[in-house]
Amino acid sequence: MSAYTTLEVRFRRIGGVRQAISMLHWDGATMMPPGGSGAHAEQIATLQVLMHEQLTAPEIGDLLTAAEGETEGMGPWQRANLREMRRRWRHAVAVPGDLVAAHSHAASACEVVWRAARPANDFASVLPTLGEVLRLTREVAAAKAVGLGLSPYEALLDAYEPDGSTAEIDRLFGEIEGFLPDLLDRALARQAGRNTPPTPAGPFRVSAQREASVGLMERLGFDFARGRLDVSAHPFCGGTPDDVRITTRYDEADFATGLMSTLHETGHALYERSLPAEWRLQPVGAARGMAMHESQSLLIEMQVCRSPQFARFAAPILRSILGGEGDAWEPEAFYLRQIRVRPGLIRVDADEITYPAHVILRCRLERAMLAGDLALADLPGAWRDEMQKRLGIVPQDDRDGCLQDIHWYDGLWGYFATYTLGALIAAQLAASVRLSLPTLADDIVRGEFRPLLQWLGTNVHSKGSLLSTAEMISEATGRPLGTADFELHLRERYLG
Amino acid sequence: MSAYTTLEVRFRRIGGVRQAISMLHWDGATMMPPGGSGAHAEQIATLQVLMHEQLTAPEIGDLLTAAEGETEGMGPWQRANLREMRRRWRHAVAVPGDLVAAHSHAASACEVVWRAARPANDFASVLPTLGEVLRLTREVAAAKAVGLGLSPYEALLDAYEPDGSTAEIDRLFGEIEGFLPDLLDRALARQAGRNTPPTPAGPFRVSAQREASVGLMERLGFDFARGRLDVSAHPFCGGTPDDVRITTRYDEADFATGLMSTLHETGHALYERSLPAEWRLQPVGAARGMAMHESQSLLIEMQVCRSPQFARFAAPILRSILGGEGDAWEPEAFYLRQIRVRPGLIRVDADEITYPAHVILRCRLERAMLAGDLALADLPGAWRDEMQKRLGIVPQDDRDGCLQDIHWYDGLWGYFATYTLGALIAAQLAASVRLSLPTLADDIVRGEFRPLLQWLGTNVHSKGSLLSTAEMISEATGRPLGTADFELHLRERYLG
Repeated sequence: MSAYTTLEVRFRRIGGVRQAISMLHWDGATMMPPGGSGAHAEQIATLQVLMHEQLTAPEIGDLLTAAEGETEGMGPWQRANLREMRRRWRHAVAVPGDLVAAHSHAASACEVVWRAARPANDFASVLPTLGEVLRLTREVAAAKAVGLGLSPYEALLDAYEPDGSTAEIDRLFGEIEGFLPDLLDRALARQAGRNTPPTPAGPFRVSAQREASVGLMERLGFDFARGRLDVSAHPFCGGTPDDVRITTRYDEADFATGLMSTLHETGHALYERSLPAEWRLQPVGAARGMAMHESQSLLIEMQVCRSPQFARFAAPILRSILGGEGDAWEPEAFYLRQIRVRPGLIRVDADEITYPAHVILRCRLERAMLAGDLALADLPGAWRDEMQKRLGIVPQDDRDGCLQDIHWYDGLWGYFATYTLGALIAAQLAASVRLSLPTLADDIVRGEFRPLLQWLGTNVHSKGSLLSTAEMISEATGRPLGTADFELHLRERYLG
Repeated sequence: MSAYTTLEVRFRRIGGVRQAISMLHWDGATMMPPGGSGAHAEQIATLQVLMHEQLTAPEIGDLLTAAEGETEGMGPWQRANLREMRRRWRHAVAVPGDLVAAHSHAASACEVVWRAARPANDFASVLPTLGEVLRLTREVAAAKAVGLGLSPYEALLDAYEPDGSTAEIDRLFGEIEGFLPDLLDRALARQAGRNTPPTPAGPFRVSAQREASVGLMERLGFDFARGRLDVSAHPFCGGTPDDVRITTRYDEADFATGLMSTLHETGHALYERSLPAEWRLQPVGAARGMAMHESQSLLIEMQVCRSPQFARFAAPILRSILGGEGDAWEPEAFYLRQIRVRPGLIRVDADEITYPAHVILRCRLERAMLAGDLALADLPGAWRDEMQKRLGIVPQDDRDGCLQDIHWYDGLWGYFATYTLGALIAAQLAASVRLSLPTLADDIVRGEFRPLLQWLGTNVHSKGSLLSTAEMISEATGRPLGTADFELHLRERYLG
């Protein structure tokens, strides 16, 4: 067996463990009774240790070196697979095992404190444990920087967005900061000049909401023979490509929020489902990164399902299933409610225009904290200053400020940028889809999504991790990633 | 760290993987969409390989030997844990890895053929693959016989019923064969002299059946903060002691069959839930074996929930939740339906009196096949002869004969005896419980099961695998396992 073939066998096994962990995560968020959490955590920790041991086994490094000397005759998929194996190995071996464990334990401990601190609006109570998480995250970043030959911040970013670069993020975010404030002002002014669209009166039965969600998911191409829709506190897309498990939540007073969450997760699910089956369980068969993943959810949610065409398709279906009557169920009202702009304090409730401000704020602050330029104790004040500067509003308390997101408390540093990178990629891909599929708008009105899915399948989903994010964007759209399509999309939708 | 302590760490990890596999099994039987089965099978196979590698790692044998030389100062639990570690290790290393894999693959292949052969009533079609399973099972048995110092059949049995002995099984089954035919005749005669109890008219809504099941489970002590009740094709008890997942099935025409399945699985669940928490994930913390496990489900189902006292407790609850009226809902009718005797062809539908005949038949035939005394091609005829001899009925086809159970086709040889051993243990334990708890009958009428559960907790559940099955029975009942209490129970219930 060649070194490369041996590696495929080893990574197939690692992939199997990774899938098992994913299924257990889904169970923990959807099915598990509360008393099961301790056993559940230990099962996952055990599998993670085993996976890490498999990845860092002494012979893997030698096999990688040997395989990299055998690339003649390899096809592009094998080469890319070997590249991704090397990347995963570098991440795994860069950090000593006891530091991995210490970071993981600190994050778990901090998350527990945060869960109480957030509703209590008590940032001071979480400061010590968050300090420990930050200290260990810095150590991890420093260790990975050496192992990966990157800056510490990029070494963290690379785990979520492979080859992600701070220079590019700075350039893109700088452009957004250039046009967004003016665009927001004009969108708000335009909105103020319009009547507020009527809102449908609830309550909306959960069973009817679910029926509507399932129906729209099926129209979008979600295959319930290879996936499920369940309920969890925070919607997510989990499971495996052959058994995609998405979750949502239902509000009996407002069906639209849950529905849009469902459609967002459906975008993630369609990506997972169409990853290349012949590379299942191999690194190259995985989704490219979190920015590309978010682009697929946002393309479905923002570009497709918040369009006026989708409103024309979906409004009658929703009216029929939810049993509604009156103007509030007209496509126009549905559409206008979907694109309502309102600067607010909470990221996950933000509209398309203000969302980047939330992300950029977090990226700036986390980099400052990691660099030691911002003390944790000064985070609440810095947060308020940034919110004032960017959106002109200031949270009255930390609950609606720096305590609102789990990420930092849970040890996820370097993640936030992928949300807005995803929005940019979604807009650029959507612009190219519209050029390739001149009938797209009509298709959406008719609920015909197969040509769109075929385009995404060919240009994104089926590529797995064959290409870098940058290469995939260039090949699919003919240009490097920029902000022009995103800006144009916002101008057309909110000012047009 | 002492050798023993090192082993505890290693086995804790093995236990974590085992629990993860159990959760994935539950998912596969309850939640998984059909298209997920391939990925699901690979995840489980991967974890099984990892678990086997952990168990057979070269240093484990040395650690066991070293720990066995350090037993001075160890408590009884540590010693028992070490004994169980050695047992698991012996089973794992006895069989070469490629034979394990070959047997597993043959069983999977045969099970697929059997799933088609059974409804098609086509034993001939499954004969070649079943032959391969039997051939490899013989090889496994021979290898384990050497490694464990047992006879080949006992080496298979030991995996399900540790220290199980064919001599004891022959003795017990011989006694049963001595008294059961006459007892069956007399029970049938007595039943024939009674009016058939009226049957409640359905349909019974699944949601109401579930509500009734949940209510009775809670009364029996099932903790829904640490467990679930779901639906699967074949009821089972899975999950982990801190998150016990039982399943059932509902028939809208007949609520009793599903309810009794649920109560049977509840008995298994109460055992799992009360295993010693301080030995969680260690071999000594596991349930003692399949015979003892079955005793707990049968004690709850047969000894408690098919008693006239339980009928008095449950009938009004069922009538209220299921909305029934008339004589069929009287406790007496409920009770008489629960103890109806009817010799039949299908094991899983059998009553308490005829069940042992189904088991003994299978045990005799499987031992003859393993010994080479019965050719597979002659199995259908041998089955018919045995059924004629034991129950006086003959299946018209193999679907209701030797094709009915999955066990042999799935590679499970040596398992069947545990069903009837469990019934004997249940009867003997129940006799001792009645002596210890003179108010038991009244307690059951009042739906008060805590004293019973406390007795079982003290004498069985909390012991884990500290003692052998034989020791546990002797300590709990003051006698070795026999058939007298089972016979007396049947005489009192069916002839009294």
